[in-house]
Amino acid sequence: MTLLHDDRLFPVEPQVRKIARALYDSVKGLPIVSPHGHTDPRWYAENVPFPDPANLFVIPDHYVFRMLHSQGIPLEALGVPRADGGETEQDPRKIWRLFAANYHLLRATPSRLWLDHSFQELFGITQRLSAETADLIYDQIAACLAQPGFRPRALFERFNIEVIATTESPLDDLRWHKMIRDSGWKGRVITAYRPDAVVDPEFANFTANVELLGQLTGENSTSWNGYLAAHRRRRAYFKSFGATSTDHGHASARTENLSQKDAAQLFDKALRGNCTPEEADAFRGHMLTEMARMSLEDGLVLQIHPGSFRNHSAEMLQRFGRDKGYDIPTRTDYVRALKPLLDAVGERPELTVILFTLDETSYSRELAPLAGVYPALKIGPAWWFYDSAEGMLRFRELTTETAGFYNTVGFNDDTRAFCSIPARHDVARRVDCTYLATLVATGRLAEDEAHEVALELTYRLVKQAYKL
Amino acid sequence: MTLLHDDRLFPVEPQVRKIARALYDSVKGLPIVSPHGHTDPRWYAENVPFPDPANLFVIPDHYVFRMLHSQGIPLEALGVPRADGGETEQDPRKIWRLFAANYHLLRATPSRLWLDHSFQELFGITQRLSAETADLIYDQIAACLAQPGFRPRALFERFNIEVIATTESPLDDLRWHKMIRDSGWKGRVITAYRPDAVVDPEFANFTANVELLGQLTGENSTSWNGYLAAHRRRRAYFKSFGATSTDHGHASARTENLSQKDAAQLFDKALRGNCTPEEADAFRGHMLTEMARMSLEDGLVLQIHPGSFRNHSAEMLQRFGRDKGYDIPTRTDYVRALKPLLDAVGERPELTVILFTLDETSYSRELAPLAGVYPALKIGPAWWFYDSAEGMLRFRELTTETAGFYNTVGFNDDTRAFCSIPARHDVARRVDCTYLATLVATGRLAEDEAHEVALELTYRLVKQAYKL
Amino acid sequence: MTLLHDDRLFPVEPQVRKIARALYDSVKGLPIVSPHGHTDPRWYAENVPFPDPANLFVIPDHYVFRMLHSQGIPLEALGVPRADGGETEQDPRKIWRLFAANYHLLRATPSRLWLDHSFQELFGITQRLSAETADLIYDQIAACLAQPGFRPRALFERFNIEVIATTESPLDDLRWHKMIRDSGWKGRVITAYRPDAVVDPEFANFTANVELLGQLTGENSTSWNGYLAAHRRRRAYFKSFGATSTDHGHASARTENLSQKDAAQLFDKALRGNCTPEEADAFRGHMLTEMARMSLEDGLVLQIHPGSFRNHSAEMLQRFGRDKGYDIPTRTDYVRALKPLLDAVGERPELTVILFTLDETSYSRELAPLAGVYPALKIGPAWWFYDSAEGMLRFRELTTETAGFYNTVGFNDDTRAFCSIPARHDVARRVDCTYLATLVATGRLAEDEAHEVALELTYRLVKQAYKL
Repeated sequence: MTLLHDDRLFPVEPQVRKIARALYDSVKGLPIVSPHGHTDPRWYAENVPFPDPANLFVIPDHYVFRMLHSQGIPLEALGVPRADGGETEQDPRKIWRLFAANYHLLRATPSRLWLDHSFQELFGITQRLSAETADLIYDQIAACLAQPGFRPRALFERFNIEVIATTESPLDDLRWHKMIRDSGWKGRVITAYRPDAVVDPEFANFTANVELLGQLTGENSTSWNGYLAAHRRRRAYFKSFGATSTDHGHASARTENLSQKDAAQLFDKALRGNCTPEEADAFRGHMLTEMARMSLEDGLVLQIHPGSFRNHSAEMLQRFGRDKGYDIPTRTDYVRALKPLLDAVGERPELTVILFTLDETSYSRELAPLAGVYPALKIGPAWWFYDSAEGMLRFRELTTETAGFYNTVGFNDDTRAFCSIPARHDVARRVDCTYLATLVATGRLAEDEAHEVALELTYRLVKQAYKL
Repeated sequence: MTLLHDDRLFPVEPQVRKIARALYDSVKGLPIVSPHGHTDPRWYAENVPFPDPANLFVIPDHYVFRMLHSQGIPLEALGVPRADGGETEQDPRKIWRLFAANYHLLRATPSRLWLDHSFQELFGITQRLSAETADLIYDQIAACLAQPGFRPRALFERFNIEVIATTESPLDDLRWHKMIRDSGWKGRVITAYRPDAVVDPEFANFTANVELLGQLTGENSTSWNGYLAAHRRRRAYFKSFGATSTDHGHASARTENLSQKDAAQLFDKALRGNCTPEEADAFRGHMLTEMARMSLEDGLVLQIHPGSFRNHSAEMLQRFGRDKGYDIPTRTDYVRALKPLLDAVGERPELTVILFTLDETSYSRELAPLAGVYPALKIGPAWWFYDSAEGMLRFRELTTETAGFYNTVGFNDDTRAFCSIPARHDVARRVDCTYLATLVATGRLAEDEAHEVALELTYRLVKQAYKL
Repeated sequence: MTLLHDDRLFPVEPQVRKIARALYDSVKGLPIVSPHGHTDPRWYAENVPFPDPANLFVIPDHYVFRMLHSQGIPLEALGVPRADGGETEQDPRKIWRLFAANYHLLRATPSRLWLDHSFQELFGITQRLSAETADLIYDQIAACLAQPGFRPRALFERFNIEVIATTESPLDDLRWHKMIRDSGWKGRVITAYRPDAVVDPEFANFTANVELLGQLTGENSTSWNGYLAAHRRRRAYFKSFGATSTDHGHASARTENLSQKDAAQLFDKALRGNCTPEEADAFRGHMLTEMARMSLEDGLVLQIHPGSFRNHSAEMLQRFGRDKGYDIPTRTDYVRALKPLLDAVGERPELTVILFTLDETSYSRELAPLAGVYPALKIGPAWWFYDSAEGMLRFRELTTETAGFYNTVGFNDDTRAFCSIPARHDVARRVDCTYLATLVATGRLAEDEAHEVALELTYRLVKQAYKL
């Protein structure tokens, strides 16, 4: 018995499956290029073993604990730390057993596929996780984790990762990145510039954050021009640690292109904590355009990840803090929202702005038509809840006819779950090959072209778009 | 010749079809559990024969007469009663002939499948309905209806209905339910609490309705606390007739959680007929939260059916009244709309709130992410216009990856068309098996798990969610 | 080697493919009925040869040049004329080579299919276009264009066009239509009434346009009643050149049904250039209802093409003018927007209003439910960015179950790219047959019925809906 079906995610019709398999065979061994994600650089810096199966697979994975919680299991019982330091389950084996006994809740979800992939391919497990097999599998994983071959750097190499990006705040000192660089290890781990803390007036401690940005850069960051200069310097610092991109997770895709005078006034209000919600939103929107202009100077790729209603439950935010599975997608407009930025810089082919969405209705209606004409725009891959077999297939079906393949940028794993990285890239490769095989079988693409496109989607486009 | 294809709605690839058929064979004979619908309890109480084919299949079925009307056929010619008592066709055979001559208009609609299923399985008809076969089929159905085996209770038993819920207003005296109970018949027919008439300030005669609610319960229903107490009493009365759920069909999913003082003031304005549309909407929204709080006390499951623009045509509303096919879906927001209710009670696992939608874009973007984390939330099945082969498949494809199977609640037939009940449940079972078979064939679910899930989707989840 | 796959766009499962092929064989030879499009009547009037391959396939085709531009190619290099008369590439062979070298950008787009179809079926080309084959193919097409058999009228006949509609402004003198009629040529080329220039207060030179309409009709067009009378006269004039329809491309689907007094006042403000944007929008909305009322008198079919954000890039509008690939779809509401018009005329079965959309979410949620009940409404085919294999299949899957086949109106090619017309109709026929074959194979439609429906979708419904 195995956990994984060899032909998983391929088309069911035998002739089309054969085409898909051939395409997949040609790309499955390519190195992983991971231009956007949230793994912890400390792992690669310190290279200490991962502690135990629960800490590896359950406690940090919001896909997993949100599903268990939705069926009434308290997050405390899954070991998720409380914001107030209150009591939570500390015994990883107990947490694992609870997870195992509820593993059926993940049936037909991407998490199930990622987990089974890790279990089988990484830890040699061939039995399905359940209450009965919980201890056996726990022990098997724990035994592996104690071996040198399962330390972060060894896994990095085993995963065949050519380059991976982490995400840091401008206020981060990048110490782990420094430590990686100084260690002489050859693994390529780069950072990315995520300035929410210093561009969002509603972010906790915004003013103090801006002041700290000034200290870090030696700029007078509480004046508008000094603030912009501080960003420029900090971006350069991030570039010196390999950064090729910035990333922005605003609640909407709103952009603005204010006069410098109006922007400066808004910035002053923001520093004094006097912005209305509308003004804070305008300021965030304007900063996207400023960031795009800096990208024209320094070449960093600009990623926009809008549309998440963060921390939807007031009670759970208070008890457990941010990023606990309560971020919910919302309807997102791009056509009107992006116009100010596009009018400013959208026609510049040397700029790359990558648009993501949590609103699949925008794929065919907005994102593909926009990316299909503006030289600066590209469409990011299926994201977050849509980073799944059905989600990725819908992404191709809804974008390709209008934006083609060449306005897309390959795959992002976007994960903090290190072991899931090979699984996620494998799913993306399979789904792309399924899509391409269907095009071939229905006379929409010649087979030799499909092979070329498979290589583009897996490897070339991501390197080109992210300048890696 | 037969009207029904044995393998209808199954996947077309032979190996996958085989898996689907095996799954279906394991669930097709399970009893029907119908937790939400609009059949008339009087049928089961009086058990008199259905009058004739037109009154059974055409006159009360808005799916059917709306389609014929869309091609220019006046509702009068189809025997649909006028609100003003004006003249309409009275000859059921004439109505039937008109229906038969236009049967092609229903091609590829769910109605066609439901009708053909009833014709063949219930009435033994094997010829397609058309102008030519109209009289023959009319006579055959009419002959059946005269037999004891076609009376409501006999059909109920033949349909293998384990339990069916009807829907009543709090102002209903439940006389037919009483009569059923007193009759000693063993068929389980339960009611459900649908309080639109007494929670919607814009409902016709709202104030009089609230007063009547007071008379029925002995509470001072025109004071805010008395009004809430009256609801509690009436819910208890409905529970004594088997009710396990309440149902709410507001125009949006808006909820509010006002202070008791503000709610009481709004209630007073509503009673005096002084609410602005916005205030009426806020009051409806607040009442959802009150109902949820009562559900925490008495255990009734709360169903929210939002998003229908009712009675879209002013002219047709005036001529024919409500429920004549002019209810049109609208875009519906859940993420912001439900937050007040969810902040109040969303984390309570002992509460069950079932969300329905007429806006399929919310499946993957809002409903699955919400139900996939909040313990109190479940997603209702594909509803109304989406209670169809394509609609139900989209439902699974768009919800499962994020919410899994266990945050769904089985099937609702939601119908007043009694004979369509077996057909509708059969379609749901087939589509679910088709979805599961595709998962199996593409390595996303093991076959033994698929069999277990098929049973859950058909029988177990609905009983559990609705406490039946 | 050939460019086209014989079974392109058919289902992949062999038995279903066989059914689709049989259906397609029965309709592929039917004449083309093209009730809505933008070919230039001058072509048919003058019947001079098309100049060269670049002017035929690249310079006027926004689908093509927008995709190349999205990858950074300046429109100037593709020969697209500048609004200011600035310099652009004039050598058609150079333009062609640039196009050819970037032909891979069109992979898996409908344009690729249309182009390959034209290349192979019309010009006998069997090699794939690329940098290597650019000159060879250029020469082959150029040689053909010089032959009499490739002049517009000859192509019209070769394409088996039974009738084609062009689109003209009320201010157009229809001289080319006159010239066609006077020439004695038997090709049926009709006009359609597209009054944006005289019903949209925000249209360039609105007041002058309305005055010109008065001169053309002899009506006092700057008085409200004279203005309506001028429309009536001009519609009659268009009818005398075969028009059977009007067409309206507003930014939204908003309709209004103002009192005549309010409408007259708004019209006066519009003429004086004093309308607010909201008032201009209300006036446009009201004019749709006026046009519908005129349609009740003169029988012209009313087409509504809403939802395009025109000329999204300010810079490109200034440099290249309108219709340069910068029209982007937006979210579109129909349910509330159409209510005023529908309350006025929606129940009149002798009226035909055809609704189009650029927002696919409206198919199942709004358009199918509306067209499935209102006698006056029909749903237009998949439009613009959705006039593609996936787009047309989604159209059927999302509309048929609620609106059936008979509330749809066949195919529109909606094109100014003459050579693509047979290709586009062929794609539509194939996709419809694929959809029908799937219904047959899954027991949702009998095979004899599918053959009848294929004929309806290809030929009968368009003739009936557009009164051709």
